[in-house]
Amino acid sequence: MSQQIKVAVDAMGGDNAPGIIVKGVTDALREREDLAVILTGRKEEIEAALKGYSYPKDRLSIQDAREVIEMSEPPVNAIRKKKDSSIVVAMKLVRDKQADAFVSAGSSGAILVGGQSIIGRIRGIRRPPFAALMPTRKGVSLLLDSGANVDVRSEHLHQFARIGAIYMRDVIGIKNPSVGLINIGAEEEKGNALVKETFPLLREDKTLNFTGSVEARDVPEGGTDVLVADGFAGNIVLKMYEGVATALLGAVKEGMMSSLRSKIGALLVKPALKGVLSTYDATAYGGAPMLGLNALVVKMHGSAKDREVKNAMFQCMDFVKADISDKIRKVIETDPTDDRE
Amino acid sequence: MSQQIKVAVDAMGGDNAPGIIVKGVTDALREREDLAVILTGRKEEIEAALKGYSYPKDRLSIQDAREVIEMSEPPVNAIRKKKDSSIVVAMKLVRDKQADAFVSAGSSGAILVGGQSIIGRIRGIRRPPFAALMPTRKGVSLLLDSGANVDVRSEHLHQFARIGAIYMRDVIGIKNPSVGLINIGAEEEKGNALVKETFPLLREDKTLNFTGSVEARDVPEGGTDVLVADGFAGNIVLKMYEGVATALLGAVKEGMMSSLRSKIGALLVKPALKGVLSTYDATAYGGAPMLGLNALVVKMHGSAKDREVKNAMFQCMDFVKADISDKIRKVIETDPTDDRE
Repeated sequence: MSQQIKVAVDAMGGDNAPGIIVKGVTDALREREDLAVILTGRKEEIEAALKGYSYPKDRLSIQDAREVIEMSEPPVNAIRKKKDSSIVVAMKLVRDKQADAFVSAGSSGAILVGGQSIIGRIRGIRRPPFAALMPTRKGVSLLLDSGANVDVRSEHLHQFARIGAIYMRDVIGIKNPSVGLINIGAEEEKGNALVKETFPLLREDKTLNFTGSVEARDVPEGGTDVLVADGFAGNIVLKMYEGVATALLGAVKEGMMSSLRSKIGALLVKPALKGVLSTYDATAYGGAPMLGLNALVVKMHGSAKDREVKNAMFQCMDFVKADISDKIRKVIETDPTDDRE
Repeated sequence: MSQQIKVAVDAMGGDNAPGIIVKGVTDALREREDLAVILTGRKEEIEAALKGYSYPKDRLSIQDAREVIEMSEPPVNAIRKKKDSSIVVAMKLVRDKQADAFVSAGSSGAILVGGQSIIGRIRGIRRPPFAALMPTRKGVSLLLDSGANVDVRSEHLHQFARIGAIYMRDVIGIKNPSVGLINIGAEEEKGNALVKETFPLLREDKTLNFTGSVEARDVPEGGTDVLVADGFAGNIVLKMYEGVATALLGAVKEGMMSSLRSKIGALLVKPALKGVLSTYDATAYGGAPMLGLNALVVKMHGSAKDREVKNAMFQCMDFVKADISDKIRKVIETDPTDDRE
């Protein structure tokens, strides 16, 4: 049997916890024999949710944690004070090497703070970014930073580019991934001060396949493997993508249901639409990895459904098997611009 | 007869010039008797394009201009050197009060530079923003700055808020317009340094109906009349909106055309879809006004069609009739934070 990967999963995080988390986890366990999961959270609630699912008992365990960090809580305080929360307990399992990766649909802030303070940054990594896998017409792009670090400098963006390229090459399997800089025009002279400073750093880094600026309007079309932005701009890209898609597909659905005639039409177009639109399904990728930590941390959508939970498990397995943290460590150690701040 | 509004229109700007510009202009002239237009550009090309359209000859004139500023030209140089370009000639007509407003689908950079250097800023206005009217499910939001000023300070954003509120009240007719700050979370403590500095300025300005942060994902839903952002973030919001909408509607169309069955369905749903999706039609508003100048400047999409051109004319008329430049002037004169930099 191949190497078993153990994932610590926050069973209490997200809008649909623990029910949907448990469903996704048991689905994943049934599909992959080399996966083991430790669910953290209120034992009796998790056990109740597990009823009705079949799963291999020897690969699923529960670590009781009585507290839950709420979405609205100030994260630094929450991580410090709620030592018995599902997030802190799970992260400590990763820190203590009882688990290889951590997955949660809970508070982004708490995951961010806990990731850095409990699991810890790889030496040389300045600002661990959230990296969002975004479906596009041509495949998938990795956007980083998608929201972890809002005020950054050009050397941070440069690091995001290098980390992102490793991820796309070794987890997603893209040879020589192209790297683009999110900008408001295609030309080098466009952009704010941060982008203008970053552009030459990326262009001159011979380890990167830098292809220039990428305008926001071209993001859904795709074609660039790694998209680099500060966490503020990156989060706007990600949230606009999700918001516009939700609004428009909602409008299409609403239109189709508005008359008998259109309802009949909807039945006829539905199978064809489903195929095309599944291209843009974000849940296929299982959440946003936070990169540059000593182990993988994956933040799922608060509204994650079981499919996203299952795919987050698979993402963890690919990540650990490809030994990405070690690859990032090696690349950063040889970073000539590294000032070990 | 009511006051006649004279609009100087760059006949050479945009992907479809001069044909589509001329079509939109003649449509507008036929619909509104109180509109007059001066087209600037190569006379013989404009005359050729005008053939086949009926229009009131006494309200349409051509001002010959032999040069065209290309999209890729560095704007400062272009404005300085191409004195006989359609943009410069038209802007001078506005500066010399031979026209009340300027409309172009040409180079944003040239419009921005020319607007400031030829038409001039209202005294006290620090950074004239582009203001984009964005269709939403609940109506329309004005996003500013949508791309003119990429590196700004909190007092600039504060001015954008005040200018935007005047526009929405007096041109669009919304009583006590709500003002929101584009952010990456709904809470006050979220955001980058610029947003955190701006938040209290907006909250404490009693002339504004400030309703807090607006997350990018909620933009398409609408509900906030004025959306404030720096030009970099604002441009990303706008371009993501357009890019995602184009990609998804393209995918829907593609899906519908993929089989005989779905084609029949498409025929049945089409009328219903059309109604719902027209809600999101950006051309209804006729381009982005650049606010804070001595006269109105409207930047249309490079790909503007005749409907957008026509509506840009109507936007100019509403703007001039409501005397917005004067209203902005008065509000800015009483701005307590104004340091007349």
